[in-house]
Amino acid sequence: MPSTPLSLELSAWSPSLGGSVPFDSSRLDDLLDDAGIDVVLVTSKHNIQYLLGGYRFFFYEFAEAVGVSRYLAFLIYVKGRPEASVYIASPMEDYERELGKFWVPTLDLTTWGTLDAAETVRKHLDRLGPFPRIGVEASFLPADAYRSLQNAFPNCEFVDANFPLERLRARKTEAELDLLREASERVVNSMLAVFRNHGQGATTRELTEALRVEEVSRGLTFDYCLIATGASFNRSPSGEVWRDGEVLSLDSGANYKGYIGDLCRMGILGEPDAELQDLLAEIEEIQQTARRSIRAGTQGGDLFEAPEALVRVSAHRGYLNFIAHGMGIVSHEAPRVSDKAPQGYDAYDAARPLEAGMVLSIETTMAHPRRGFIKLEDTVAVTESGWTAFGDGGRGWNQSGFRL
Amino acid sequence: MPSTPLSLELSAWSPSLGGSVPFDSSRLDDLLDDAGIDVVLVTSKHNIQYLLGGYRFFFYEFAEAVGVSRYLAFLIYVKGRPEASVYIASPMEDYERELGKFWVPTLDLTTWGTLDAAETVRKHLDRLGPFPRIGVEASFLPADAYRSLQNAFPNCEFVDANFPLERLRARKTEAELDLLREASERVVNSMLAVFRNHGQGATTRELTEALRVEEVSRGLTFDYCLIATGASFNRSPSGEVWRDGEVLSLDSGANYKGYIGDLCRMGILGEPDAELQDLLAEIEEIQQTARRSIRAGTQGGDLFEAPEALVRVSAHRGYLNFIAHGMGIVSHEAPRVSDKAPQGYDAYDAARPLEAGMVLSIETTMAHPRRGFIKLEDTVAVTESGWTAFGDGGRGWNQSGFRL
Repeated sequence: MPSTPLSLELSAWSPSLGGSVPFDSSRLDDLLDDAGIDVVLVTSKHNIQYLLGGYRFFFYEFAEAVGVSRYLAFLIYVKGRPEASVYIASPMEDYERELGKFWVPTLDLTTWGTLDAAETVRKHLDRLGPFPRIGVEASFLPADAYRSLQNAFPNCEFVDANFPLERLRARKTEAELDLLREASERVVNSMLAVFRNHGQGATTRELTEALRVEEVSRGLTFDYCLIATGASFNRSPSGEVWRDGEVLSLDSGANYKGYIGDLCRMGILGEPDAELQDLLAEIEEIQQTARRSIRAGTQGGDLFEAPEALVRVSAHRGYLNFIAHGMGIVSHEAPRVSDKAPQGYDAYDAARPLEAGMVLSIETTMAHPRRGFIKLEDTVAVTESGWTAFGDGGRGWNQSGFRL
Repeated sequence: MPSTPLSLELSAWSPSLGGSVPFDSSRLDDLLDDAGIDVVLVTSKHNIQYLLGGYRFFFYEFAEAVGVSRYLAFLIYVKGRPEASVYIASPMEDYERELGKFWVPTLDLTTWGTLDAAETVRKHLDRLGPFPRIGVEASFLPADAYRSLQNAFPNCEFVDANFPLERLRARKTEAELDLLREASERVVNSMLAVFRNHGQGATTRELTEALRVEEVSRGLTFDYCLIATGASFNRSPSGEVWRDGEVLSLDSGANYKGYIGDLCRMGILGEPDAELQDLLAEIEEIQQTARRSIRAGTQGGDLFEAPEALVRVSAHRGYLNFIAHGMGIVSHEAPRVSDKAPQGYDAYDAARPLEAGMVLSIETTMAHPRRGFIKLEDTVAVTESGWTAFGDGGRGWNQSGFRL
């Protein structure tokens, strides 16, 4: 693979069935206008998924390298003209066209690598333009495709379109919230199965593998598991063994149709002693306190006040930490309530009101010098009157059902 | 996630334990010399895995987007100076350093996005250089990082390093061949389990999901499944149902520790009739004929002669096709025996001898107008005296064990 089926006659640039635009295109137009962008070239998997109404091409989802290049799909969106949208991608995606997956009026399913894709973009921009300012996802556009487009349009300005595209996704629809709820519940149920069915003598590598299978069996795509046991703060899967009386933290991300469940739950081999009960209760109190300030209209930065006040007076403050960040189809996305995130991540929403449909991950982490890594991470969606939590089970000490 | 554990003190640019170089560095030096490259900046997951001796950072393996940027690791390799190698990546990879995963003498585990990573590369190149010609993987280097490096080194030439890096990987070691054998066997065993346990009434979407679970349960990372049943040539998973007397093709890629198993096997619901027996026998004959010309010293292009001769005289030649391509940690890689692959893929090895340790995928595909999509795809490693096949079971009609 890939081999193009012989029977498949590929017509360059074929009309798709068409359909209604699956996102708020007038909002995107406004955001592009604010950013001074005339046309945007979308190349990240997550933004292509969003603008195509949930579509990801399965064949290259995990392994995008092919030959000496890689799969690169482009979605061209012209400000104010959704009907001019073009999706440029692989000939194999004609299978998906046949299945009616695309709303985009123009499909050009003819490209295999970065350079033929960029050249195909050029042809469509020549037809649709001119566009003085071209938006690109600069972290998700390969250098060779970028160079090719620069050469093709030497008088155009290339502008980073990350911000408007992220903003467009900030408030989730009901359908998106359902997917996030599903993802969260399935992740937590997977964790509870691992706690129940494993124990004495299991290595963190084996436990991670077991979680992976539990998640995949529940229809999730496994992303990662950070795992620690005993007094260790090392969270890579390894040969480390879960022992009697010791804690186990499972902090896993997995996605359901692209929407991320990212939660942390705690296990214990044997009975949790009084100290462990107290430590997790303190973490739980911080998590619940954080929730109480969440509702539509609260300023994003204000949700830190109450939990951070608890951290400041804690006997464990030297190794106790509360953070919060937006999440959805990217693990850190809008709302940007804190600047504790990578690159370009100002706390844009810290002084802006939270809106119903925004989704937050809230995390309280204790790196206890004797008892090890203890953490809860929860997903909460902002509502008009407060919040609703997804995958909210298993918040106490989950006891292993397998003990020698 | 990601939250950096509080206890983890991050020292910028720390020495690793060091270790022996896990690849043939003198061969890489020669290849870089031929390409006129003084230093190479490796950014693709597959080439980082290769040069780090099998290492992939698990946390970002599937979901690399974070915030408005993405995870981007750099391995800097200076021609002729493996001891000067630097690995620039995420603070979370300090867990992996603690576990002794790195041979690279210098680790700089301090970066979260594309731009801080590029800036960190600049600092190290300033220290190690000057380098007039910098090799990059232009399809695997984000545009923003590339722009940043161009600005930092305006007098340097940026040269594409795809070719030398691919060439370095062309002959597999025994350890790599073992991983490819494992991957292939596990993929085929997964397929046989799906044929055995499913049947009447199953949709291709359900069958794909079942294969995914079978592969993951066997320790594989699922990449994709192309699937067709009945007379359809559409190979996307869908609501299409496997019915009595109909064929089912499973063409799946999955990897074991990064090494790809990519095979196609055929199932039938009920008994295969004489026509189906004949059709698959003809495909099998082409596959076996192709193998017979494979051995170290054969010119790469010559392996097409015998199977293509059979195709030319076949009654089914209008919809029968044989292809072959190198494979390993990328689904199409050296040896380049054919130019039927994306971007920049000349048939470099067509007039060069195959070498022991090279690995080929050979595929015979029949898109039969009445009986549907019938195909075998096999993986064979070149040896001094011939070839050895990986995952060679299940080559006939595999009957569903589940029939109403």
